[in-house]
Amino acid sequence: MEATRILLDAADIPTHWYNVVADLPTPPAPPLGPDGKPATPEQMGAIFPGAILEQEMSAQRWIAIPEEVREIYRLWRPSPLVRAVRLEQALGTPAKIFFKYEGVSPAGSHKPNSAVPQAYYNRQAGIKRLTTETGAGQWGSSIAFAGQMFGLEVRVYMVKVSYGQKPYRRLMMQTWGAEVFASPSALTDTGRRLLAEDPDNPGSLGIAISEAVEEAASRADTNYTLGSVLNHVVLHQSIIGLEAKKQFDKVGLYPDIVIGPCGGGSSFAGIAFPFLADRAAGDRRAQDLRCIAVEPSSCPTLTKGQYAYDFGDASGFTPLMKMYTLGHDFMPPGIHAGGLRYHGDSPLVSQLFHEGLIEAAAVPQLATFEAGVQFARAEGIIPAPESCHAIRAAIDEALTCKARGESRTILFNLTGHGHFDMSSFERYFSGQLENYDYPADAVAASLAHLPRLG
Amino acid sequence: MEATRILLDAADIPTHWYNVVADLPTPPAPPLGPDGKPATPEQMGAIFPGAILEQEMSAQRWIAIPEEVREIYRLWRPSPLVRAVRLEQALGTPAKIFFKYEGVSPAGSHKPNSAVPQAYYNRQAGIKRLTTETGAGQWGSSIAFAGQMFGLEVRVYMVKVSYGQKPYRRLMMQTWGAEVFASPSALTDTGRRLLAEDPDNPGSLGIAISEAVEEAASRADTNYTLGSVLNHVVLHQSIIGLEAKKQFDKVGLYPDIVIGPCGGGSSFAGIAFPFLADRAAGDRRAQDLRCIAVEPSSCPTLTKGQYAYDFGDASGFTPLMKMYTLGHDFMPPGIHAGGLRYHGDSPLVSQLFHEGLIEAAAVPQLATFEAGVQFARAEGIIPAPESCHAIRAAIDEALTCKARGESRTILFNLTGHGHFDMSSFERYFSGQLENYDYPADAVAASLAHLPRLG
Repeated sequence: MEATRILLDAADIPTHWYNVVADLPTPPAPPLGPDGKPATPEQMGAIFPGAILEQEMSAQRWIAIPEEVREIYRLWRPSPLVRAVRLEQALGTPAKIFFKYEGVSPAGSHKPNSAVPQAYYNRQAGIKRLTTETGAGQWGSSIAFAGQMFGLEVRVYMVKVSYGQKPYRRLMMQTWGAEVFASPSALTDTGRRLLAEDPDNPGSLGIAISEAVEEAASRADTNYTLGSVLNHVVLHQSIIGLEAKKQFDKVGLYPDIVIGPCGGGSSFAGIAFPFLADRAAGDRRAQDLRCIAVEPSSCPTLTKGQYAYDFGDASGFTPLMKMYTLGHDFMPPGIHAGGLRYHGDSPLVSQLFHEGLIEAAAVPQLATFEAGVQFARAEGIIPAPESCHAIRAAIDEALTCKARGESRTILFNLTGHGHFDMSSFERYFSGQLENYDYPADAVAASLAHLPRLG
Repeated sequence: MEATRILLDAADIPTHWYNVVADLPTPPAPPLGPDGKPATPEQMGAIFPGAILEQEMSAQRWIAIPEEVREIYRLWRPSPLVRAVRLEQALGTPAKIFFKYEGVSPAGSHKPNSAVPQAYYNRQAGIKRLTTETGAGQWGSSIAFAGQMFGLEVRVYMVKVSYGQKPYRRLMMQTWGAEVFASPSALTDTGRRLLAEDPDNPGSLGIAISEAVEEAASRADTNYTLGSVLNHVVLHQSIIGLEAKKQFDKVGLYPDIVIGPCGGGSSFAGIAFPFLADRAAGDRRAQDLRCIAVEPSSCPTLTKGQYAYDFGDASGFTPLMKMYTLGHDFMPPGIHAGGLRYHGDSPLVSQLFHEGLIEAAAVPQLATFEAGVQFARAEGIIPAPESCHAIRAAIDEALTCKARGESRTILFNLTGHGHFDMSSFERYFSGQLENYDYPADAVAASLAHLPRLG
């Protein structure tokens, strides 16, 4: 009997995260402060603990995972690597399709991989309370879970329109003991100012970030957490690809193509970077490896953006980062893969793309849901809309293999289940979903506002 | 490092289901037809395939699981056995608490364990279409998934009030390709008659059963499926306990107490019966084994019901079964564990309880949610309201161990996750949930309507 689910024992959870910075051809461009000079750890120390800042700046290849973090990882990790045999059959492809299923975590996505160490390092630093922002709620629920595991208070600023529309994610956070506030809220100066201007302000991720950061910066016992983009988040997510490599070893295979959805970049980086390590180390199996970051065609940061210094948030609060960006004040269309609606991208993913070491693809919304439904009907699992982007690209690659009669091994990151996104499927089935055109004018306008340096 | 998740390989999925009938001290009382005489296979052949009927009547101890069924089981099975170390620590108990986590299935509960073989045997029999009823949607979504796996059309009659209130479960069924109708519907005589009387009829499980059975009985290519109560369903669910035994073997442990939530009985039977097999076989480890079926105190079938022949459905359509019952026209209070709102119980569970071989406990609603939240905060997983009943009893047993300074090994069936039940948690957190008094008068009235035999 051929195993379709390749499992590892708890003892096989990697002991170290992999840091791609050690294998970059050129050193990463530093984040810049408001004065245009490299941001100092001191500037960021108000909202992050020292251990996180060290990871953010580190060029060390392997960084040890604390045993306390591995203990929590063991609640759901190692996650399964699954061969999608029934999907292969449905497509009639000679390709082998594998997915790493991160939806088995308590929060239902890959996000706890970073939420858990972030909570741990903050508790080690004596922090009592974490703040964060959340849109659809995937990161908020992950940090709520992780905070509960380490006895930290968690306060989540949830974009007001999502607070009303996504009550179940909010309840998930509350079940894990977090306090959730509709943002803009009356708890911060930012929120009070905006509510005074417009009591019906629907909120935005940018506003929620500002509130969460403001609270963290103003209280010594409180820190801020971020769920993607930054180097330490990318580092923590490497657990995904590191496990996948062990699982492929178990069955004597190695992927030719590695695919991840790409918004802020951490889920793509998490599955792809550990394989890039092999290529950098001269591993023969990895010499022709292709890694594909898949983004929405309506928010095509890598494929249509500019590689430049820009703010990480809409309101220009964060340090400047060198990354692909559509402009920090670009407002992406309202696609249902909320986790991919980001104007920028991880600086590390951006640099690798800029240097030609990884690929990017942009896919339209309807085609992603079509792929997600085909996947659900073959493999059973109902995927999150973000994951549907990776599925779309994996199916497209498998169909290319079919057309060419080539047997390739394809791996994609199934970042989460869609149990809290069923209303998106309802809109898809009822024909209410649309493909947004690439908003070229809006991007041009927003790129014109890129900060000017020097 | 001590493993907290005990995993098995795909090859370890049991090859046979266990049939407790082979180990009963006395033969089961047969189901009776409308004439009071034992129901014949021919009477039931209009809605069930022969292989299912054989299993329903079988006294054979081990029944082979078809390879095609094991192939689908491998999409999520073997399910993990998890030691709830963090819950033990939170309780300060010397007891070891284990749970078998069935929420990893695509439909998120143990129900696919029976839906898959039911779909398989129907397809083998040349059936093209399955019907069923569903309330909260757990069984409906499981049969939608299973039907899709074997290329069968699935039509689900969903209680109208749930159809409106539980859109996400409905969408899950539609994602897997099933047709879902609000019941009463205009598709059956039963539905049309009721709608003519009252176009706003909110529906009930009894009505939905009648519609699904009517359609199945009236079409040669269509059969009916049921998600609990019957012997073949109990048989299929034995996969849960059989896997758990292998997992305990792996760590050299054996449970002293086995706990399952109990509505129709299949989830309790699924985890408990395979351990009863050991006791029947004289296994020394199982001689003091306690198996506890946990039911809602507002629908206390085993603890307050009568052991008698009664109809399985509200409208008296099914054969009569010898079981504990609160009377077939008893309408249980509207607790949120919809899967446990059943007037009767599996005849096999009933007989074992009647013969003193298993125990039963009844717990009030608020205490189950309290236990569920405590569990979620310790172990991460948010449990379904049905599962919260088992958690409540497991915590109570663990606290008894603490009071007595006894170290027992406790196993419970975590039958599913609560991702589609978050509105119940909302009502719990906001203080809107209540403990229903035991409806003694309603039960007495309904027991007065038990069918009279002979």
